[in-house]
Amino acid sequence: MKYIQEFREGDHVAGIYLCKQKNSAVTKNGKPYDNVILQDKTGSIDCKIWDVGSAGICDFDALDYVDIVGEVSSFNGALQVSIKRTRVAGEGEYDPRDYLPVSERDIDEMYKELLGYVGDISNHYLKALLDEFFVKDEAFIKRFKQASAAKSVHHCFVGGLLENTVSVANLCRYYAAKYPMLKKDLVVSAALLHDIGKVYEISSFPENDYTDEGNLLGHIVMGSNMVGKKAAKVEGFSKSDLLQLQHCILAHHGKLEFGSPKTPALVEALALSYADDTDAKMETFKEILENNSGNPGWFGFQKFLDGNVRATR
Amino acid sequence: MKYIQEFREGDHVAGIYLCKQKNSAVTKNGKPYDNVILQDKTGSIDCKIWDVGSAGICDFDALDYVDIVGEVSSFNGALQVSIKRTRVAGEGEYDPRDYLPVSERDIDEMYKELLGYVGDISNHYLKALLDEFFVKDEAFIKRFKQASAAKSVHHCFVGGLLENTVSVANLCRYYAAKYPMLKKDLVVSAALLHDIGKVYEISSFPENDYTDEGNLLGHIVMGSNMVGKKAAKVEGFSKSDLLQLQHCILAHHGKLEFGSPKTPALVEALALSYADDTDAKMETFKEILENNSGNPGWFGFQKFLDGNVRATR
Amino acid sequence: MKYIQEFREGDHVAGIYLCKQKNSAVTKNGKPYDNVILQDKTGSIDCKIWDVGSAGICDFDALDYVDIVGEVSSFNGALQVSIKRTRVAGEGEYDPRDYLPVSERDIDEMYKELLGYVGDISNHYLKALLDEFFVKDEAFIKRFKQASAAKSVHHCFVGGLLENTVSVANLCRYYAAKYPMLKKDLVVSAALLHDIGKVYEISSFPENDYTDEGNLLGHIVMGSNMVGKKAAKVEGFSKSDLLQLQHCILAHHGKLEFGSPKTPALVEALALSYADDTDAKMETFKEILENNSGNPGWFGFQKFLDGNVRATR
Amino acid sequence: MKYIQEFREGDHVAGIYLCKQKNSAVTKNGKPYDNVILQDKTGSIDCKIWDVGSAGICDFDALDYVDIVGEVSSFNGALQVSIKRTRVAGEGEYDPRDYLPVSERDIDEMYKELLGYVGDISNHYLKALLDEFFVKDEAFIKRFKQASAAKSVHHCFVGGLLENTVSVANLCRYYAAKYPMLKKDLVVSAALLHDIGKVYEISSFPENDYTDEGNLLGHIVMGSNMVGKKAAKVEGFSKSDLLQLQHCILAHHGKLEFGSPKTPALVEALALSYADDTDAKMETFKEILENNSGNPGWFGFQKFLDGNVRATR
Amino acid sequence: MKYIQEFREGDHVAGIYLCKQKNSAVTKNGKPYDNVILQDKTGSIDCKIWDVGSAGICDFDALDYVDIVGEVSSFNGALQVSIKRTRVAGEGEYDPRDYLPVSERDIDEMYKELLGYVGDISNHYLKALLDEFFVKDEAFIKRFKQASAAKSVHHCFVGGLLENTVSVANLCRYYAAKYPMLKKDLVVSAALLHDIGKVYEISSFPENDYTDEGNLLGHIVMGSNMVGKKAAKVEGFSKSDLLQLQHCILAHHGKLEFGSPKTPALVEALALSYADDTDAKMETFKEILENNSGNPGWFGFQKFLDGNVRATR
Amino acid sequence: MKYIQEFREGDHVAGIYLCKQKNSAVTKNGKPYDNVILQDKTGSIDCKIWDVGSAGICDFDALDYVDIVGEVSSFNGALQVSIKRTRVAGEGEYDPRDYLPVSERDIDEMYKELLGYVGDISNHYLKALLDEFFVKDEAFIKRFKQASAAKSVHHCFVGGLLENTVSVANLCRYYAAKYPMLKKDLVVSAALLHDIGKVYEISSFPENDYTDEGNLLGHIVMGSNMVGKKAAKVEGFSKSDLLQLQHCILAHHGKLEFGSPKTPALVEALALSYADDTDAKMETFKEILENNSGNPGWFGFQKFLDGNVRATR
Repeated sequence: MKYIQEFREGDHVAGIYLCKQKNSAVTKNGKPYDNVILQDKTGSIDCKIWDVGSAGICDFDALDYVDIVGEVSSFNGALQVSIKRTRVAGEGEYDPRDYLPVSERDIDEMYKELLGYVGDISNHYLKALLDEFFVKDEAFIKRFKQASAAKSVHHCFVGGLLENTVSVANLCRYYAAKYPMLKKDLVVSAALLHDIGKVYEISSFPENDYTDEGNLLGHIVMGSNMVGKKAAKVEGFSKSDLLQLQHCILAHHGKLEFGSPKTPALVEALALSYADDTDAKMETFKEILENNSGNPGWFGFQKFLDGNVRATR
Repeated sequence: MKYIQEFREGDHVAGIYLCKQKNSAVTKNGKPYDNVILQDKTGSIDCKIWDVGSAGICDFDALDYVDIVGEVSSFNGALQVSIKRTRVAGEGEYDPRDYLPVSERDIDEMYKELLGYVGDISNHYLKALLDEFFVKDEAFIKRFKQASAAKSVHHCFVGGLLENTVSVANLCRYYAAKYPMLKKDLVVSAALLHDIGKVYEISSFPENDYTDEGNLLGHIVMGSNMVGKKAAKVEGFSKSDLLQLQHCILAHHGKLEFGSPKTPALVEALALSYADDTDAKMETFKEILENNSGNPGWFGFQKFLDGNVRATR
Repeated sequence: MKYIQEFREGDHVAGIYLCKQKNSAVTKNGKPYDNVILQDKTGSIDCKIWDVGSAGICDFDALDYVDIVGEVSSFNGALQVSIKRTRVAGEGEYDPRDYLPVSERDIDEMYKELLGYVGDISNHYLKALLDEFFVKDEAFIKRFKQASAAKSVHHCFVGGLLENTVSVANLCRYYAAKYPMLKKDLVVSAALLHDIGKVYEISSFPENDYTDEGNLLGHIVMGSNMVGKKAAKVEGFSKSDLLQLQHCILAHHGKLEFGSPKTPALVEALALSYADDTDAKMETFKEILENNSGNPGWFGFQKFLDGNVRATR
Repeated sequence: MKYIQEFREGDHVAGIYLCKQKNSAVTKNGKPYDNVILQDKTGSIDCKIWDVGSAGICDFDALDYVDIVGEVSSFNGALQVSIKRTRVAGEGEYDPRDYLPVSERDIDEMYKELLGYVGDISNHYLKALLDEFFVKDEAFIKRFKQASAAKSVHHCFVGGLLENTVSVANLCRYYAAKYPMLKKDLVVSAALLHDIGKVYEISSFPENDYTDEGNLLGHIVMGSNMVGKKAAKVEGFSKSDLLQLQHCILAHHGKLEFGSPKTPALVEALALSYADDTDAKMETFKEILENNSGNPGWFGFQKFLDGNVRATR
Repeated sequence: MKYIQEFREGDHVAGIYLCKQKNSAVTKNGKPYDNVILQDKTGSIDCKIWDVGSAGICDFDALDYVDIVGEVSSFNGALQVSIKRTRVAGEGEYDPRDYLPVSERDIDEMYKELLGYVGDISNHYLKALLDEFFVKDEAFIKRFKQASAAKSVHHCFVGGLLENTVSVANLCRYYAAKYPMLKKDLVVSAALLHDIGKVYEISSFPENDYTDEGNLLGHIVMGSNMVGKKAAKVEGFSKSDLLQLQHCILAHHGKLEFGSPKTPALVEALALSYADDTDAKMETFKEILENNSGNPGWFGFQKFLDGNVRATR
Repeated sequence: MKYIQEFREGDHVAGIYLCKQKNSAVTKNGKPYDNVILQDKTGSIDCKIWDVGSAGICDFDALDYVDIVGEVSSFNGALQVSIKRTRVAGEGEYDPRDYLPVSERDIDEMYKELLGYVGDISNHYLKALLDEFFVKDEAFIKRFKQASAAKSVHHCFVGGLLENTVSVANLCRYYAAKYPMLKKDLVVSAALLHDIGKVYEISSFPENDYTDEGNLLGHIVMGSNMVGKKAAKVEGFSKSDLLQLQHCILAHHGKLEFGSPKTPALVEALALSYADDTDAKMETFKEILENNSGNPGWFGFQKFLDGNVRATR
């Protein structure tokens, strides 16, 4: 199978691709046709099915994996695939990881790193709480590993939430070593849990869109609630510890106008908010550099960095 | 007993007053004395105990009700009581309502009005949820009736939370009649529950200060959590209804920068946020008018109204 | 006559439509043609006149009512009418209300409601002032009934100003009943007059664009001036009452940055600003719900509500 | 008579001073006395009348000119006058200009300069309108010459409005010479009229406080209205010219948040807003320099300039 | 040679034009062609070279002056040139001023005016410093005369920097005459030097884009540095004078959020910031008026003026 | 010598203290006296010299070290020293470190850490540049070690600049290890140099106030200039490296409104701005915790953290 990135005008292509979008239209002459967007991990491409009723065209829907045959042409300067045959692929025929943007780091390796951080927690209750999520709750673990950290912006790929979580926890461990007034167990636990609400705020890949709960409550409140419920399962978990941990989660966006209902009132909450902000902005800059790799000049105004940027020479 | 408002220079006073603050000091000559602030519902006054070791002076603490004997003098243009005798009063000797700012409306009457609104809810599940709070949970009811709606600003008196809640619910009932796209049961239920988190965000009178939970989580998140827990007791309460109700509570400040972690996404949430904002500002203006009653001119710049105001002629 | 909403590809259509826009163009081959937009109360449609010099094509201008014959085709996925014959229609041949977006409520019925509110005013002078506008000034009354409340945004239809005025006055009557410190006659009179400047700020339908005076002075200052001039006709109208009424009009946008040259300094001005804001936002949400009727999911980011919204379930 | 600035501890003083404030108080021993603030153009001083009932003490009120005899002492590091005798002075006994802060420039000379600018206007109608104010309306002229441009901040002295008006008009004349797209008659007329609303927004010296009309409507709307009324007296004054002139007045604060209900839509309105802003800030800096004359270092943070400043060396 | 503004469909055109952009593309049929944008001082136009390999087509690059032969056609309502022959023109064959937007005022005449302002400086050291730039540094002078004052927005043409500099200096001379607390030599020198950093912040026409140094340091810091280096060449130039002059340059944007690292701390810095802001806004309005010349109505919302504007009547 | 913190009412004290302020006054009876503030590293205290002309009183000025004899009394609840004898102390008689707030970390040890970071720089030119400052320039090194990082706010003590610099560099080294797209030598060099302008922006302890240059240019521009001058001494230091390094310094406040004339355009500049912001806020919180040590509750609203905070339990 050829990756979409490698498609060239005139190619005959055949293989399984993920259908990202599909909708029907009518030509000027009144003939129906389908607009389709196919995707793999290297990119996506516009496609047309001009003979929607032909024998070789089996019906399929958005988010199906579809085995297609087609021809690549150029229209208005962009490539386009004219699809001649389609067939919905069976589950064993493809590896979903070939079709989704995915973390550069190995997911299992990152998860191992995360479990190492959990293992370093000395406080019995906090460790037990983390185990409830990261060791015992298999449904949670499966979704957590797959989740992206965002619908758009940064860390927007399979494993993005895990990658961001490990990175923020790593920063907080460093802060705890550097600034002795920080309680290490609290700030690292808060870092590991700060975005768990995203597991249910954004639906799984390939859909990756806000859920109803996500839109109505948001991952900040959802994460705080999830911690509250698991803590109730840990015998002896004190109300005071729970409030402090929930506060760190609620305050981790740092300011009210960024969606935190409370500003940091504990030094660990302040540290976590800086770790999260730093990691998000560094990842954003990294992705901009990658998207412009090979460009020796200025990339133009970047909305999320509020200015024009370039690669360092 | 004479109300503090009526104290005059030269008076000999005797009676039970609430001790709002107490701390020890030393004169220039090294003699210890106590600074005390006494309060009743008409005001508060600075007092001194010069003979802290004398026989007639029994020990007491802030927030005790104290039976005192003293003399009123004038110092630097303000009245001051020199306390000669003190005794901590027993529980039956005084009526707490004489010592606290209190709603002008009768608390039981307002509560009856609130129960009437609950009774008008048609939706079985929402009504059952409201009953869990306002009919079945006696500890909650007791605190709810006594709570103020704020530590400072507006509705800052015993019964203030109840008065504000009934008023906001009344506005929402009117909106529901006026704007047919509103689901009346949802918007009125949300109105009745929107500030219940304040019951535990601010401690009871006479202390009336933010609790640890209040400072760390805030009444918006606390109220949403309280609703979540009670809804679990109502069999058949749908997740969808719960999310919508919690959203209304979370979004009732209208904007992120006012501490809501979500902006209104449902028309009922929007209506509730307007009802709450309107009632708060009207009450603020009302209290300013009352504090300046008799002033025929301009009152000067009012921070919460962002301008200079006067009474209408 | 067929409504534009019902046009289908291949239809032969004939009837009178309002010409919203018209301009001339030239084909690649140098042949002149006309771009025309026709409108009725159900929508608008792009049209072309390819044979601009043909016998059946009579000249007409934007804002004329034109009797046309044409054929509906599809171009780039949108419908388009190729116009074969045109004739400017005479005044009695059509009912303008069929060509303009119009309030769902009956205009005369709303006006009757408004007059009822005027009739309820006890203050002799305020009532006389309202009569000057709403009973005696026929030119004003005619324009007031037809005016929209805005060029875009909300209440943007024939009768929109009247509908918004009645709704805001209704809210103010309710406030006056609920908050006794409000002077009812003043706040209701101010509500009825708050947007009268719009009658001359925006030109009549179908043009519905800002006038020169509207752009240079704005409806807030224009309304205040109009009140000043009519008050001079009411014998005995006190300067103090006039200032208070004009202040309510000047301050009804609530904040300087929203175009009010004064913030509310009287409690009636504050109440009016809340009534106006509440009604505008509720109507905005209502129109969004209507535009998305049938959409069971999230509608996407809404600029005027600053967030993503959906219908309540 | 000795100026207040020259009072020294131990002085016996006698002369006529303006009473700025007066109120009654009671000593610790229950004896009534009066607190008085006396003022002349060099400053103000706290005074006490300890023997309020004595024969030499005649009654007087705030804003009276009072002939006093007293002794200067020092209390808490500040000078204080103990007043022994008082008598209300008659109108011919004093020159009010000795008692008020006053423009450094001669008022009549500035007015002559203003009339010169009026004389240079070529447009017959604009000149006639200016004459209505500055030549024919004697009551207006008298107040205009005496008015301050502000209650506090800058140009806060007798003649301040005149000084600011002449200065802004001078800037606009220069702009008109420099930027040919400006219509000179319009921008200079607008400059001369831009703040005339202040004549009735702030009451006369020595009171110099916002009037009821000033608080409710503001000088921007008041000035626009005044121009509208006078224009009606000038036969043939076109509506178009009036709207443009009123727009310049309404927009002269440049932005909505500074209280203009419209942003500048004409280049003359833009020029006027820059002239007014430039002159206000230059005068503010000038007054800061004068208040710190002799200070060779940094003056500290200046609120109206948003920073720390010093004199240029 | 015909100016681009005068091209009409069907014209055969031949002449030298500046190539603003050039890039290669491929037709649907796989045939390569070139997209070219040609420019002269009257405008720019899209062109195609369909026969890229033909004998008459000589290679050229963006920013070359190219002698072309072609035909004007109309595509999608816009004109387009099909280029048949090309040849890179030699340096003497064209006058660059015919290809670039250029100041309406004569550059040498403006420079003479600037030198006159330099000549009026009394302070020996400031004059010597100005001479270092404007008299002795020929490389600087050449670039300064050609530079635009901006990449977009206002004064965006050859000579724009010079025009803006002379205009701002003229305003400052007027301020110095009007406000005696200004030190004339300092404020005029600062005006002449305030934007010299732009000489190296933006590359020369026709490229006219931000340089690497411009993007990394900005013209404000660059200008301050340039002054520092030249001042070192003027014997006896005091550190105090240098700091004051550099401060004026650093603070000339008036506020931190506009890119000045310091707010004006000297009255000359304040005056300069007003002169610069006034001239920029007046020029912006002037250019809007010119771009809409002949439009008798409203021009629509103008981003840089934050409102809708029109020409004065 | 007794530390000021240990002074008690009635103490006779004798020893050398730093005179922070001194000014003359006159009693009500016309007798001159001196107000003096003495300071050591534990605090400061108000003092009076009542017999300014007496034999034992030798003249001294602010910032002198003065050997005094006096008595401690209590006035208005605060301690006060009545000074009987004074003598200016000679340089060897005291250790300045006893009189100034000083870093808790050893200055020489921190400097050694800094030199270790310099030693780790691989890039020859950057290392040579750092050596110019931190190894070769002894006057700079002496001031750098003594400087505070701020006049108020955080790190406001002797060694504060060094402590902050080492801490920020440490963060940047960690970032460089964590985020591989960072050029370690550049980001660490920028960290070491980012605040060197403060060495001359704020005068030395004990004065510790903004210098004229500091107020006019600010440490951001000063630091960039200092780097430019030293780089000129390093043969072969490329212009490109210099611009990148200066950009990091100019952009290290992250946003224009915080005084950076450029937003971060390089990823190292972004990283540095986060390191600086994180360290400043963590130190601020640390100092708040130290100032409230022993307080088990909430500390109240903290301006620099924009909220109420408490110690973690």
